[in-house]
Amino acid sequence: MSEHRGYEGGSLEFLKANQVSVGDSVKILADITYSGIIMPRYEHSDDKHIVLKLNSGYNIGLEIAKIEKVEKIQSVEKIIEQDKKLEKVVGLPKILLLSTGGTIASKIDYRTGAVTPVLTAEELNSSVPELAKIANIDAEVLLSEYSENIMPEHWLQIAEKINEYSKSDYSGIIIAHGTDTMHYTSSFLSFALAGFPIPIVLVGSQRSSDRASSDAALNLIGATKFITESNTKGVYIVMHQDENDDTIACHVGTRVRKNHTSKRGAFQTIGDNPAFIITENKIQKNIKKDFFKINKFQSRIKLDTRVALVKYYPGYNPKLLDQIIEMGYRGIIFEGTGLGHIGNTMYESVKKANEKGIFLGMTSQCIDGRIRMTVYESGRDLLDLGIIPLENMIPEVALVKAMWVMGNFQDGEEIKKNMLENIASELSS
Amino acid sequence: MSEHRGYEGGSLEFLKANQVSVGDSVKILADITYSGIIMPRYEHSDDKHIVLKLNSGYNIGLEIAKIEKVEKIQSVEKIIEQDKKLEKVVGLPKILLLSTGGTIASKIDYRTGAVTPVLTAEELNSSVPELAKIANIDAEVLLSEYSENIMPEHWLQIAEKINEYSKSDYSGIIIAHGTDTMHYTSSFLSFALAGFPIPIVLVGSQRSSDRASSDAALNLIGATKFITESNTKGVYIVMHQDENDDTIACHVGTRVRKNHTSKRGAFQTIGDNPAFIITENKIQKNIKKDFFKINKFQSRIKLDTRVALVKYYPGYNPKLLDQIIEMGYRGIIFEGTGLGHIGNTMYESVKKANEKGIFLGMTSQCIDGRIRMTVYESGRDLLDLGIIPLENMIPEVALVKAMWVMGNFQDGEEIKKNMLENIASELSS
Repeated sequence: MSEHRGYEGGSLEFLKANQVSVGDSVKILADITYSGIIMPRYEHSDDKHIVLKLNSGYNIGLEIAKIEKVEKIQSVEKIIEQDKKLEKVVGLPKILLLSTGGTIASKIDYRTGAVTPVLTAEELNSSVPELAKIANIDAEVLLSEYSENIMPEHWLQIAEKINEYSKSDYSGIIIAHGTDTMHYTSSFLSFALAGFPIPIVLVGSQRSSDRASSDAALNLIGATKFITESNTKGVYIVMHQDENDDTIACHVGTRVRKNHTSKRGAFQTIGDNPAFIITENKIQKNIKKDFFKINKFQSRIKLDTRVALVKYYPGYNPKLLDQIIEMGYRGIIFEGTGLGHIGNTMYESVKKANEKGIFLGMTSQCIDGRIRMTVYESGRDLLDLGIIPLENMIPEVALVKAMWVMGNFQDGEEIKKNMLENIASELSS
Repeated sequence: MSEHRGYEGGSLEFLKANQVSVGDSVKILADITYSGIIMPRYEHSDDKHIVLKLNSGYNIGLEIAKIEKVEKIQSVEKIIEQDKKLEKVVGLPKILLLSTGGTIASKIDYRTGAVTPVLTAEELNSSVPELAKIANIDAEVLLSEYSENIMPEHWLQIAEKINEYSKSDYSGIIIAHGTDTMHYTSSFLSFALAGFPIPIVLVGSQRSSDRASSDAALNLIGATKFITESNTKGVYIVMHQDENDDTIACHVGTRVRKNHTSKRGAFQTIGDNPAFIITENKIQKNIKKDFFKINKFQSRIKLDTRVALVKYYPGYNPKLLDQIIEMGYRGIIFEGTGLGHIGNTMYESVKKANEKGIFLGMTSQCIDGRIRMTVYESGRDLLDLGIIPLENMIPEVALVKAMWVMGNFQDGEEIKKNMLENIASELSS
């Protein structure tokens, strides 16, 4: 770890001159006196400011030209040392936190400002002091990947690790995960670990901790409260409901999507309210059915990546589809238009795919709403060509499900049957 | 046209026995007396009901077992003949309506129930009587395609036709269009006809007219009101704002998406309010800037379809990208994750594409929000590989824009410059 991570030019000089490092607790005299911890900077930024995490939890940027005095209160090393002494409270529920990387894991130690993806339970508990009052959290670092680099093989790895704890005394498992592909991972875990006896909650962070009001801590607290209080099973994503700090949303892991690049409330349940709404004083339950169709847990941690998601658009060259067919894919999930259509220029290639026994599923790029291919002639033509309408499954979820189904079943009829069966709330009414 | 279109079995027998056809004006005695027009049926449905369009405008299904008597008031032929005699009102604004097909065009003659995609001005004016009070509408049938079968060559055809009227005395042009790909077409027209002197309004229908409360008529009335009253230029999509009949939304043609498979309010402006809200008594303007960057109109009706939209997902096989590169594509629009990422497994192929001089643009599958590739290391890596962040351009719009840019420019720098220039409100703040 760099002592001055992210700082350069004038701001780096300033820190050095004042003999303070990232993570140090300081008192700064400028227009008024600020007390807090010096935060690292991650983004391309000017060299005229330093970022301070105030004791209130908010971050501010201070212009170095206006700073009159910097006083070091405690060094980062000292703070970390103290934190390690935090004791666990006897009698609280136990939660396992698995870290896979992403903004939340690399910044979670936001109180000390140290930028390390290696997260220990002690660092976690101390950086989000509220957690220690709710649960005793054991932490393990499983991966250290931005979620755009999380691949299907990582899904297997995460599922295998969780599977080790199917008979543990944990009340639930939290997965710290990058937000980019968190909903793909949650989908895979939903299918591979259908019926898992304790809740599995993926949690991420949309804002790095060097910006004001990072959502990491509150999302983690929300996930912890959810596990200890909701008394439910299933795979969920727990994130801010909107830009406010007082409402955390818990989404069904197969009905959720990242619908905004940067907002804290980016994750949304498609076509419904979030399964649970977590506020300071209560957990409101909106979900009616059980998460998993089956109650009996039996892990099926397999997949086959020979499934392609094909988003149709005007001018889509059917030769691209031919390539997919020739490359030996076993399944194609179409992201069609409207109620589930693709242009008639595609029909020849679709016919070819069908004759090869490739599973052909239809979802909609509208994202919300149900596939209905019997309304228009063009839909009926596609049904005749062997395309299976996948109800209101979200395209990304249908893709992950198809990978999982292909990994577990070989027979065409079994594949079709399992694709249409509601295994982990991926179909909703 | 079939006299009993959509009817079969018992309901067909019933119509024949009572010597009435689709389109006839009838009086039906059941629990009470119903007056209206017999509607065709389009969907797979039972043979126990007939559908009647009441004089109030609403459709109902009547169970034939409960019908006591059917009295024909006027035949469909007679109604059509009368309608043709409707005179135009001197002094009203003139509007041109071009029909391209889709639900709206095949069902627009809902008063007579005749199912023909050939729409004449007289049929239109008479089927939506409110229109004749607002404007004199000339209609032309340009295409008769479901919009999933509308291809880039059709975009050219539509643009060329509109271009013929750049110096006409029309106040605006309405394009009746299927909803599936309406937003792709509106995007192309926005670029190809940038600066067009009168408004171009695409209008569609989500509900077929054999279902209660079709939205076709109200959307058409809204489009007509918008053209005659808004005093603006640009390319827009006019559709129901939500499930209510009292609010019609007018969306910027490059900032809109079909976000639900079946709801009447399926079209939504991404990340903002609709540009205009049309209610019975007023038109509320929300858009602040001019639609087109330039004021001077010069049509550029060209495109090159050698652009691919690549939606990234975990497990995306980079060989699929290699195929696109080898097939001679000139541009690739990535629909990346989050702020604009794709997995590091793609880097080698992206590098290859860049070396071949292929334009590489980044959009987000989050759909809403802005691309920011400087926040994380992985984004910066992608920038280094030559990927251009396309701000908050919607993926589908970026695809269409790239096709248009490729058709008009050959030089790599010109292509890049034009992709980033806000031509038709495709970028918003």
